Amino acid sequence: MELKIINKKHKEDKKKIKIKNVEVGGDALVVFAGPCAVENRQQIMETAEAVKTFGGQILRGGAFKPRTSPYSFQGLGEEGLKLLKEAGEKYDMPIVSEVMDTREVEMVCQYVDIIQIGSRNMQNFSLLREIGKIKKPIMLKRGMAASIEEWLMAAEYIASEGNEEIILCERGIRTFETYTRNTLDLSVVPLVRQLSSLPIIVDPSHGTGIKELIAPMSLASIAAGAHGIMVEIHPKPQHALSDGKQSLHFEEFNHLMKSVRRLHEYLKKQLVMNNE
Amino acid sequence: MELKIINKKHKEDKKKIKIKNVEVGGDALVVFAGPCAVENRQQIMETAEAVKTFGGQILRGGAFKPRTSPYSFQGLGEEGLKLLKEAGEKYDMPIVSEVMDTREVEMVCQYVDIIQIGSRNMQNFSLLREIGKIKKPIMLKRGMAASIEEWLMAAEYIASEGNEEIILCERGIRTFETYTRNTLDLSVVPLVRQLSSLPIIVDPSHGTGIKELIAPMSLASIAAGAHGIMVEIHPKPQHALSDGKQSLHFEEFNHLMKSVRRLHEYLKKQLVMNNE
Amino acid sequence: MELKIINKKHKEDKKKIKIKNVEVGGDALVVFAGPCAVENRQQIMETAEAVKTFGGQILRGGAFKPRTSPYSFQGLGEEGLKLLKEAGEKYDMPIVSEVMDTREVEMVCQYVDIIQIGSRNMQNFSLLREIGKIKKPIMLKRGMAASIEEWLMAAEYIASEGNEEIILCERGIRTFETYTRNTLDLSVVPLVRQLSSLPIIVDPSHGTGIKELIAPMSLASIAAGAHGIMVEIHPKPQHALSDGKQSLHFEEFNHLMKSVRRLHEYLKKQLVMNNE
Amino acid sequence: MELKIINKKHKEDKKKIKIKNVEVGGDALVVFAGPCAVENRQQIMETAEAVKTFGGQILRGGAFKPRTSPYSFQGLGEEGLKLLKEAGEKYDMPIVSEVMDTREVEMVCQYVDIIQIGSRNMQNFSLLREIGKIKKPIMLKRGMAASIEEWLMAAEYIASEGNEEIILCERGIRTFETYTRNTLDLSVVPLVRQLSSLPIIVDPSHGTGIKELIAPMSLASIAAGAHGIMVEIHPKPQHALSDGKQSLHFEEFNHLMKSVRRLHEYLKKQLVMNNE
Repeated sequence: MELKIINKKHKEDKKKIKIKNVEVGGDALVVFAGPCAVENRQQIMETAEAVKTFGGQILRGGAFKPRTSPYSFQGLGEEGLKLLKEAGEKYDMPIVSEVMDTREVEMVCQYVDIIQIGSRNMQNFSLLREIGKIKKPIMLKRGMAASIEEWLMAAEYIASEGNEEIILCERGIRTFETYTRNTLDLSVVPLVRQLSSLPIIVDPSHGTGIKELIAPMSLASIAAGAHGIMVEIHPKPQHALSDGKQSLHFEEFNHLMKSVRRLHEYLKKQLVMNNE
Repeated sequence: MELKIINKKHKEDKKKIKIKNVEVGGDALVVFAGPCAVENRQQIMETAEAVKTFGGQILRGGAFKPRTSPYSFQGLGEEGLKLLKEAGEKYDMPIVSEVMDTREVEMVCQYVDIIQIGSRNMQNFSLLREIGKIKKPIMLKRGMAASIEEWLMAAEYIASEGNEEIILCERGIRTFETYTRNTLDLSVVPLVRQLSSLPIIVDPSHGTGIKELIAPMSLASIAAGAHGIMVEIHPKPQHALSDGKQSLHFEEFNHLMKSVRRLHEYLKKQLVMNNE
Repeated sequence: MELKIINKKHKEDKKKIKIKNVEVGGDALVVFAGPCAVENRQQIMETAEAVKTFGGQILRGGAFKPRTSPYSFQGLGEEGLKLLKEAGEKYDMPIVSEVMDTREVEMVCQYVDIIQIGSRNMQNFSLLREIGKIKKPIMLKRGMAASIEEWLMAAEYIASEGNEEIILCERGIRTFETYTRNTLDLSVVPLVRQLSSLPIIVDPSHGTGIKELIAPMSLASIAAGAHGIMVEIHPKPQHALSDGKQSLHFEEFNHLMKSVRRLHEYLKKQLVMNNE
Repeated sequence: MELKIINKKHKEDKKKIKIKNVEVGGDALVVFAGPCAVENRQQIMETAEAVKTFGGQILRGGAFKPRTSPYSFQGLGEEGLKLLKEAGEKYDMPIVSEVMDTREVEMVCQYVDIIQIGSRNMQNFSLLREIGKIKKPIMLKRGMAASIEEWLMAAEYIASEGNEEIILCERGIRTFETYTRNTLDLSVVPLVRQLSSLPIIVDPSHGTGIKELIAPMSLASIAAGAHGIMVEIHPKPQHALSDGKQSLHFEEFNHLMKSVRRLHEYLKKQLVMNNE
């Protein structure tokens, strides 16, 4: 694997990425949460409040949605970004949203703190190069059939244009198993940490597609060494315009936050003990 | 599968796509051939001559190459398109080349007769919409982990913007098998013909990655009902800047052309007999 | 790949396997046909008559059925083998049926002319060794997640015990695609012919799971170089105890036989022309 | 999924399986450890001592090894079982080893405390039925391309013959990713616990094939809710006759044991807190 910039040995320390008052890749566990898609002001405001209240650090929300069918809800577009920004400002949280088109990078950058590249665009090399030229952190999701080599090389594309502020996000790969929406491949967590200097988070919502699996897979991700998790939450999952089956209620999110924070505290203590 | 435009019942007949003097989707077998990447004038001129001489109808050649590593040869860009156009004109053949960026669609359209969407961009929905607005035929390759439903829906994206001139191209899917570069899924040929009105061709070069398999898989594709094949050829495969191992010498291409044309003639006669 | 016995270079010619008056691996196209499972005398007799009438050479029928659930119909067992043998004798065709247990090899051998090893047992090494010691031809189906190397090595297990009369059967592999039951991997046909001395047939019934795909995939298999095909047929597919959706009516089988035989005749002539 | 016996609702409590003084499926974390294959007395004795010393509860060791090539080391057979039994008795640990042939079940039962069914035999239904009739606990590994439904149905086969003492073992599935030997699918841990009454353990050695990944994946498995883990250890991994690259040194195993036991203690305490 011909990694020249993001390889581990290149850096003395692991990369730490600062977004306002949040640091991804450092000691803290970072939780990205929010709805699959921004639907309206009330929905995103209520959700932002829940994320903040229960201890999440970064607000996510889709404005441009990649959907299999052209006839499905495609997101609110720029209007969604405005609402997301308003919610992020009100609750003092950085926001992350996906960009799908080289021509929209500049516009999306006016609103968001972190640019998300979705799995369907992981090898959209024009887009990778374009976001490599900006000064915002990137969250690069793994393609659904991308090998770990291809994924790291996609990050290298971004870095080769000058932007090394990249957070990797495992979100499950496509396999023969259909009971879960995707197969969450947690072994990439220690692998990415071994091969590269980049932080890695895990998205168990897309990774499993089943809300009951989000809590155990979040704990597993953290135990495997993930720097954070990203989860979908919604005021009323059963009415969500997309991904309702894999979205948590606020109360479920509250429970999740408690258990992941405790586990992370425990693991940090272990690390200190082992290093003494 | 919510196909509204490209579904079969929508049309009395199968879609026939005219590109200059060539028709894809009709009675004739159409062979797309050329190098993986345009490398220089001599290479593309020699190759175009071979394609013409041995009976191919459409000249292919990459100018913008999607490569796993940012440090690999990325194609000649617009310069490559100029050379390809020159070769196409000299030998009176339509040309096809890939576009990877919404911002380059207009420019690429100035040179090529058919726009190719590569597998990595099959669900680049911005790009699909953009090429849905132009008046050129599209060749849409199947994504390496795309289900047949996702593939047809990607075509529906293009059609929903007004452009129904779409040729589908099966190029192998990603599976556990590593002996071949991909697993060529020929069952999609009759499936696409059953579900949609679009013509379908097969690319056994990428589909197998092994030059010895190109001839048998071309014959198999045609027997399965493909409207054409796309093969990589090169004056000196061992010196090709990309995909040398799966490229045919001109002489091998000559042999291939003879056998696929004969098989197609035979099958056409059978069809006539069965209908009488 | 450490093939010592079944590798190609070991033999001057391809292996030809004689079963009574039928030869697999020679010039003739061999069609194996019959029901998924033997259900009763009338069903197997009617089916055998149809196989014979329309030109099939080998009668297939399951007596011991590997089923996902222990509560599904498991086959008639030895009683099914008796009926199959009776049908084979009446219509003068060799018969093939699956064995699943080392302890039953001897018993099954009393009835059948070819022993089938199903995909779920492709790496049941005890069973492979056991049938390596007998004097009957073997039909070894590819495992649903078996690489070509593992498959050929499984054949090598049989051969290493002394039995080199092995017919390989491609029946589709398991991939992310769910529209078809399996993904038929026809590139193994030329690959097996290149790497080994064994004949190879293709089973488009299990390979696709969709009866409309059987004819085109049969033609594709033959064009790719298969020595034969194996298809499921049933007097009343809609009432079959298993695999009804992928079984052909007799009349559909009749049509299939006509087209595969004609294609094979054509290809044989081509070969002669090329060699002259 | 037609689970009649092993489904969750059928049981008031989760199944707890007692093997001598060890209980799998209860509160304790159970660690299965040992070499891939029993190679000689010294190797298995040294290994057993290490398993005992560092806190493992069950000694594993292969005597009948399923190998891709008939020319690879196939295990010591019954002699290996004798050595394993001797080691288990000396260090007072239950032992587990694989059986591959219905005819050998009785013999293997004379030595081992738990019968292992390997992934290649997960749908060897004759073998499943045979071990369903015995009175020993079974460890059923997931097939490398088995869906969760097929896996649970395989357990149902065993249970339907009367033996409900079944431990499931996730060991990775086969996907397109080749960097790891298999893709460890940890989402099955909570799924199995939700759908069935059976305990589940995880084998990160086969699941990843990379020794550096064993510790993080063990921790992740336990956080996901696994009842135990199975790891390969060897006195001199670099000289192991099989699977050396994924085997731990004793000292590495010691470290692993400390961290998994601590994590398990922590999680148990959390559970108590949550229930109060």
